Amino acid sequence: MKSKLTIIKIGGNVINDEGALSRFLVDFSKVEGKKILLHGGGKIATEVSNKLGVVTQMHEGRRITSAEDLDVVVQIYAGLINKNIVAKLQQEGCNAIGLTGADGNSVLAVKRPVKEVDYGFVGDVVAVNSKSIVALLENEMIPVFCAITHNKEGQLLNTNADTIAAELAIGMSELYETELMYCFEKNGVLMDVEDDNSVIPIINAEKYQELKNDHIIHEGMLPKMENCFAALQKNVSKVIIGNANALQDKSIPYTTLTL
Amino acid sequence: MKSKLTIIKIGGNVINDEGALSRFLVDFSKVEGKKILLHGGGKIATEVSNKLGVVTQMHEGRRITSAEDLDVVVQIYAGLINKNIVAKLQQEGCNAIGLTGADGNSVLAVKRPVKEVDYGFVGDVVAVNSKSIVALLENEMIPVFCAITHNKEGQLLNTNADTIAAELAIGMSELYETELMYCFEKNGVLMDVEDDNSVIPIINAEKYQELKNDHIIHEGMLPKMENCFAALQKNVSKVIIGNANALQDKSIPYTTLTL
Repeated sequence: MKSKLTIIKIGGNVINDEGALSRFLVDFSKVEGKKILLHGGGKIATEVSNKLGVVTQMHEGRRITSAEDLDVVVQIYAGLINKNIVAKLQQEGCNAIGLTGADGNSVLAVKRPVKEVDYGFVGDVVAVNSKSIVALLENEMIPVFCAITHNKEGQLLNTNADTIAAELAIGMSELYETELMYCFEKNGVLMDVEDDNSVIPIINAEKYQELKNDHIIHEGMLPKMENCFAALQKNVSKVIIGNANALQDKSIPYTTLTL
Repeated sequence: MKSKLTIIKIGGNVINDEGALSRFLVDFSKVEGKKILLHGGGKIATEVSNKLGVVTQMHEGRRITSAEDLDVVVQIYAGLINKNIVAKLQQEGCNAIGLTGADGNSVLAVKRPVKEVDYGFVGDVVAVNSKSIVALLENEMIPVFCAITHNKEGQLLNTNADTIAAELAIGMSELYETELMYCFEKNGVLMDVEDDNSVIPIINAEKYQELKNDHIIHEGMLPKMENCFAALQKNVSKVIIGNANALQDKSIPYTTLTL
């Protein structure tokens, strides 16, 4: 029987809130068994970019990662945020090790192909190299990934954190019974985005279609949901979307996705 | 018989020079057997601090690491420099994994005690936890350390890179036949600091005393030399000080230290 692995992605808004982040890290350190943390970026990168005078270019609401942007993102995600999370987890007795996809060649990506728009140094994940990650897990280390990958040609790449989480879960599900949790500041997938009590407890593929057709699931949520169902179709045993506080507080509702 | 481990520290001036760094990383990737890289910071942190308007306080030529300084140092050392080195080593087929002392709790330090001066968030190394490092080495990963440690109480600390290299060598020498190499832009310890051909090929403890008495070994070099002899006294089998290019170019002279 495969042993259990929990992969938890924590969103940017929790990263932005020092108190919420501290609480989450204490809760994460109490999660039993093998686990991996994947964290988003938060708004600090934008603040530092502004201070450094790096002008962020956008195309239809999507950020273009210039060379200068990439430097800031690597500094903030892989440096400041990742290493402070590692230090705080170590304080909680959790033997964290902070990684990008370049470390141990663990997450390989390609620079997004240029079509109408060149998104710059943005990576699309092509492979998860489970060998290095397994070695860490089997030696009682807790990998903490930020959303930076590489192309094995010396180039770091800014990569969507939700996608890395799903790809990690898919990659690891061959070896472990893998559960994927997306934790953020809301209580899950909501019928009414303004009402945190309107959590939809279970969404299967059929229900997902309904919710899409009824425009209950909004634009920002769609790529996350697509990642979740892709993971479920590729042997990830369970996907949960919920509040960061639900990790230890069992009274908080959350959404479970199933096929 | 213990297997061999080479620990290489690369100095800040090589980090500052993109061409020199690239050459060094190609050379490092060709070093046979188990190895660890430890890199200094270079001048990028100071440049970024200046751009961000962080005022660096100094005391008698020594930097005081304020909370703002620490953030910049963590960003640049653990983020920008470390991860770009890892990506470039991966390109060379070297399975690098970038670390601070917080990762895997590998290098534990204490905040330097306040006497006349509070140096701020500066760490003095108290222990190397070889367990995590050995797990990486035995799983064919190449640890790449930057000069950041932690105190296991959630605090990252700016730490002297030469000292970390020596402490790592001492810590690992129980398990491996460990060789420590300090690589920088000069050809070793020089009789005449202006003449790169005046390399002193071998310095033992007695010769070191002579060189100190004759003021041949200058102030900046003294702490490095003290680290080297401390390492030799604690079972490190060999210490070399030399040019980064001497790693593969056997025609370049260097200094070997012995007891």
